[in-house]
Amino acid sequence: MASAKLELEKEVSMPVVGVIGAGQLARMMQPAAIALGIGIKVFGEAEGSSAHQAVTKVGDYNDFDQLVEFAKTVDVITFDHEHVPTAVLERLEAEGFSVRPGPNALKHAQNKLTMRRKLTELGLPQPIWKAAKTEAAVAGFLAEFGPKIVVKTPIGGYDGKGVRVISTTAEVRDWLEGISAFGGELLLEQKVEFIGELAQLSARRPSGEFRAWPLVATFQEAGVCSEVIAPAPASSRHAEAERIAQSIAEGLGVTGVMAVELFELESGEILVNELAMRPHNSGHFSIDASITSQFEQHLRAVLDLPLGDTSSTSSHAVMINLLGVDSENDFLRHYPTAMAKYPQVKFHLYEKAPRQGRKMGHLTLQGQDLAELLAAGRACRELLYNR
Amino acid sequence: MASAKLELEKEVSMPVVGVIGAGQLARMMQPAAIALGIGIKVFGEAEGSSAHQAVTKVGDYNDFDQLVEFAKTVDVITFDHEHVPTAVLERLEAEGFSVRPGPNALKHAQNKLTMRRKLTELGLPQPIWKAAKTEAAVAGFLAEFGPKIVVKTPIGGYDGKGVRVISTTAEVRDWLEGISAFGGELLLEQKVEFIGELAQLSARRPSGEFRAWPLVATFQEAGVCSEVIAPAPASSRHAEAERIAQSIAEGLGVTGVMAVELFELESGEILVNELAMRPHNSGHFSIDASITSQFEQHLRAVLDLPLGDTSSTSSHAVMINLLGVDSENDFLRHYPTAMAKYPQVKFHLYEKAPRQGRKMGHLTLQGQDLAELLAAGRACRELLYNR
Repeated sequence: MASAKLELEKEVSMPVVGVIGAGQLARMMQPAAIALGIGIKVFGEAEGSSAHQAVTKVGDYNDFDQLVEFAKTVDVITFDHEHVPTAVLERLEAEGFSVRPGPNALKHAQNKLTMRRKLTELGLPQPIWKAAKTEAAVAGFLAEFGPKIVVKTPIGGYDGKGVRVISTTAEVRDWLEGISAFGGELLLEQKVEFIGELAQLSARRPSGEFRAWPLVATFQEAGVCSEVIAPAPASSRHAEAERIAQSIAEGLGVTGVMAVELFELESGEILVNELAMRPHNSGHFSIDASITSQFEQHLRAVLDLPLGDTSSTSSHAVMINLLGVDSENDFLRHYPTAMAKYPQVKFHLYEKAPRQGRKMGHLTLQGQDLAELLAAGRACRELLYNR
Repeated sequence: MASAKLELEKEVSMPVVGVIGAGQLARMMQPAAIALGIGIKVFGEAEGSSAHQAVTKVGDYNDFDQLVEFAKTVDVITFDHEHVPTAVLERLEAEGFSVRPGPNALKHAQNKLTMRRKLTELGLPQPIWKAAKTEAAVAGFLAEFGPKIVVKTPIGGYDGKGVRVISTTAEVRDWLEGISAFGGELLLEQKVEFIGELAQLSARRPSGEFRAWPLVATFQEAGVCSEVIAPAPASSRHAEAERIAQSIAEGLGVTGVMAVELFELESGEILVNELAMRPHNSGHFSIDASITSQFEQHLRAVLDLPLGDTSSTSSHAVMINLLGVDSENDFLRHYPTAMAKYPQVKFHLYEKAPRQGRKMGHLTLQGQDLAELLAAGRACRELLYNR
């Protein structure tokens, strides 16, 4: 019960996490901070961002001086996105600010070639790959592993952008011509014939503790995550996926939450596709369906606090993304109808302006009957998609 | 994944809930608002309150003009506490502002005599009671129902304050002498020989929908809630408790979350002890262990949005309050040790200045084995209590 008279409070000295970027990931860190009693401050790029309730500074994250000003108000710097230049982060670290994950780890998530080289060094399973600077190199890889190969820009890609499946070198001529923008090299990868995609979410703290959530199955639409099933119903490689994640987290010195996206082959074999060093769309189910959510775990990890239990609260959980339909539908029109029809659905809306394909929110369901959860979740999404 | 470039966002027009009072209840509404995509603004009384991350105005809730200024920035007014004078709320309603629960309902939670009279009218089970203005009336009730009776001040009591168990009229002489401060009457109640205390949490929205959580068992220390077990392990009166709550919610026109505190007699009979018309300490377990938390439900209810599923995610949940030890121990000293030893515990710290007996935070555990949950929760609390 609340007191009759709230007295003037003395601020209790819990550490403050500073988040660079004010998207939905920063937004979803705030509830976890509130529960733990940890302070949170967000560095946004514009007013009215998704994480607006926690934004304490609006500015340009490429500007070192602005970042320093922000860093002085917090105990540790972490991220909503991976786009802060490594050089800026290295300067922050050099000046004594705590940056987690640090630039030495983060560069592997920022540059896919750096990541591939490191995974090779660690002996982890991944698609056959090669760095290429010239059309001849692309042609050679096409000849060996074609008729189709995957070409990626090592930097700047996200949500399917910066990735092309090609069968002729002409299809990446523009990238080769502007190759300096991507660090001077392209990443070529064998086009893996996978039967499914998986993601292994985990967290590691600076003092070494590592915890993983159950391996999940992810489903993409036009390169963007649309659904996640936790745990992955078909794979038998749960232990292997966890070992891979731990090798990467330790090998790269990752601190905080990390998602390892994996291809699942018909043989059952799993290959590392991508890495994200922050809470990830594949882990949103954990807010409602795990003892410890990825957002809480990330805060614990970057503060070097002990990690929480990653057990599930139900046999199955389903996460369904609400992807923007167009520039008009903000999903609010049918929101009350959806709430009435699906009282079991956990709604998460990010307060973002609508745009086609944009991540606007997500739904989570948990329970005993996976087919039922999927059917209800998809029907709820369709209802919200209606104009 | 976060976008490479966060664009300037257009604010999406979700309704905004305004909360009067910035204690831990307002604090715990914020995560629910963030998930639902609902706006939240809190009217606090001082800087640095527990709900500071959501406070948009600091002032005096007894001042009508300040409340109006705040009310203009939100779509509906609700409460962290029950202390805003009825007259002020009636004026707000008269000027067209939405107040939920409204003053007509809230007066029953603010005045225990008003509540007793209404429950009698509704024919609901409660202890034998009487209003008294004089020492003679107290003496008469003592003679009939003594040797001990309970005397309560109808207004201004909370957490055991304003309640005395007496065997002579002298023990309430001071209250009788200053009786005008309590509305001119004291409430006398039969001292019920109960074997346990229960609480029935529910929610009702203006358009009538009603949902209840499982009946819980509550345990008090010096009049303050110390532990809650959900569902109540021994009672067989779950359906009856829910019917009582629904009768009260409908009979009093309550909107939002309501807690009905009940005495459980040896016969199994249940009697209404107290009412709270807001999220309540007995419902904190629902944040972690119910599909819909009481805080989310309260926001839905006061906005007249459809109510969420109140099912539990586990067979058992245990909520353990962290009550202030003294003015020094803010529980932070052993917090990392407790996290390391009890990864399954959900910690909730309210960022309040320490004071003996004060509600500083709570712990929640859920699982299959109630005895194990209780043992772990209590051991974790003891660890945090250490200086």
